[in-house]
Amino acid sequence: MNELGKKVLAGDVRAASRLIRNLEDNIADTKTSLKHIFPHTGKAHVIGITGAPGAGKSTLTDELVYVLRKRDKTVGVLAVDPTSPFTGGAILGDRIRMIRHAEDPGVFVRSMATRGSMGGLSKAVGDGIHVLDVMGKDYIIVETVGVGQQEVEIINHAHTVMVVQVPGMGDEIQAIKAGLMEIADVFVVNKSDREGAPKLYKEILNMLNMSQFPDGWRPPVIKVGTSLEPHEFNRDVAKIVDEIENHREHLIEKNLLAGRMRRKTQAEINEALRAAILEPVLNRLIANGELNEMVDRLTKRETDPYTLADEVAKKYLVK
Amino acid sequence: MNELGKKVLAGDVRAASRLIRNLEDNIADTKTSLKHIFPHTGKAHVIGITGAPGAGKSTLTDELVYVLRKRDKTVGVLAVDPTSPFTGGAILGDRIRMIRHAEDPGVFVRSMATRGSMGGLSKAVGDGIHVLDVMGKDYIIVETVGVGQQEVEIINHAHTVMVVQVPGMGDEIQAIKAGLMEIADVFVVNKSDREGAPKLYKEILNMLNMSQFPDGWRPPVIKVGTSLEPHEFNRDVAKIVDEIENHREHLIEKNLLAGRMRRKTQAEINEALRAAILEPVLNRLIANGELNEMVDRLTKRETDPYTLADEVAKKYLVK
Repeated sequence: MNELGKKVLAGDVRAASRLIRNLEDNIADTKTSLKHIFPHTGKAHVIGITGAPGAGKSTLTDELVYVLRKRDKTVGVLAVDPTSPFTGGAILGDRIRMIRHAEDPGVFVRSMATRGSMGGLSKAVGDGIHVLDVMGKDYIIVETVGVGQQEVEIINHAHTVMVVQVPGMGDEIQAIKAGLMEIADVFVVNKSDREGAPKLYKEILNMLNMSQFPDGWRPPVIKVGTSLEPHEFNRDVAKIVDEIENHREHLIEKNLLAGRMRRKTQAEINEALRAAILEPVLNRLIANGELNEMVDRLTKRETDPYTLADEVAKKYLVK
Repeated sequence: MNELGKKVLAGDVRAASRLIRNLEDNIADTKTSLKHIFPHTGKAHVIGITGAPGAGKSTLTDELVYVLRKRDKTVGVLAVDPTSPFTGGAILGDRIRMIRHAEDPGVFVRSMATRGSMGGLSKAVGDGIHVLDVMGKDYIIVETVGVGQQEVEIINHAHTVMVVQVPGMGDEIQAIKAGLMEIADVFVVNKSDREGAPKLYKEILNMLNMSQFPDGWRPPVIKVGTSLEPHEFNRDVAKIVDEIENHREHLIEKNLLAGRMRRKTQAEINEALRAAILEPVLNRLIANGELNEMVDRLTKRETDPYTLADEVAKKYLVK
């Protein structure tokens, strides 16, 4: 086993931080560490939190950590940030937040971003979860920003998916809600003291009333206010944690955890294949100048990308 | 040339609709049509519109179409929707909006979504743009929902990128703003009659003041209100169109269009390679049952995804 992997397995926090940073940077050698870590994964319960920007996911995550710690659970948090593909830099870096958990060895918080444009974020997050998992965290919270397809892919890594909705967003949100409806295990109506919250709450209930639940789990809808007293906020978030626990027990009792794990594994193998098959071909095309030549020919409209890609496939793929 | 491609080139609107639907469904034969269409593309000016959900992009797009039509330009619109990967269905389908342009043959509006989870949305949008392009549209507006990396990839298909910001969003938006800063050619502060708008406007200007513009183009910032009289709204959006025109002229004058086209071409060849190289391997693994077997072994933690993917690469990639 390589040094870094060994240290992470031994519980070295700095080594874990380094490995996660290496994942973001897509450093080639991280694969060796991950290969050794993987057999020891699969113990943590992974909570995916998603919703539109401004839905208050970070504040909720912070309080979820607090409640879980009160119940003697250790917690890892991965905050997934959008990245600039041009500077290659993370926008927020490691967020200056969750300061109240900074001194607590039972909490480990990292933000993640990815460089490059080949869509490796979901892979990096999946691998990041493995790192927190072998560190022995009982719960891992993955907080994602955004509403696109990629986010849904990230959510594939979670056992319990929590969808945070807030009142006062446009009709696009409603559309997104329909898409998230199918992946949500727990709904949270955040900022529920705002105008429009009762309508939103009712809409979600209506959609649920029209839905079927083949797994026997009807997602609960929990209201959380923002202008609440701290102890009221804490009480609402404790309800969320109760429902996450209920969902976890439901998955175990009904033998559904295997299905969730399978979904996660399927996503992981897809991503590993992309890294192992597509990236080496691209790297060869870049190294030998072929890619540049292809772009030139396309710019002149001498050929089309589909014909070129077929030619590359013929050359690099075994028949 | 195949029938469908021929019809699209001849300006058949129904054929174009069918081809776009085929792109969404990732029907294998669409490639033949696209191969024939590609040499005739590259004429339209592509405007990418992006921003958070609820930023009012759809309303702006609708008015942009109106203003462009007043100036005798033909317009194509592609609205990119998030998709449910489970039902495989588009959420909004073809939106019931832009009804005022429905009878105008100079306007063609389609929404797009993709099935599957292998991240083909950017490819489908790039191909969709080609279809509108060969239909002879002067301007193509691509409207994207979401804030992730994928959105940035979609934006690679645009010549002029318009970023829509609204006041009153959380700090995540501010972070996103930093990422979008680098790709924006035109900024719009929408709902500028709302509280917080002057602060947002000032923040964008501050960021621009700290930025450098190697291409010699400083993105203008245009304020648009929502509670405006129709003619005031129209006047503000006309300003946006002026700036899009200015940007287009700037790209031509300074010989920068080639660079934009190159960025677009680079994105396209990447996507074509994914489709030509990764997908056939995945399909073979599914067909011969290997993928299922791999998931089984991973679930039992007998091996790890990285080792498995390396084995697949060894088997399917030419050395």
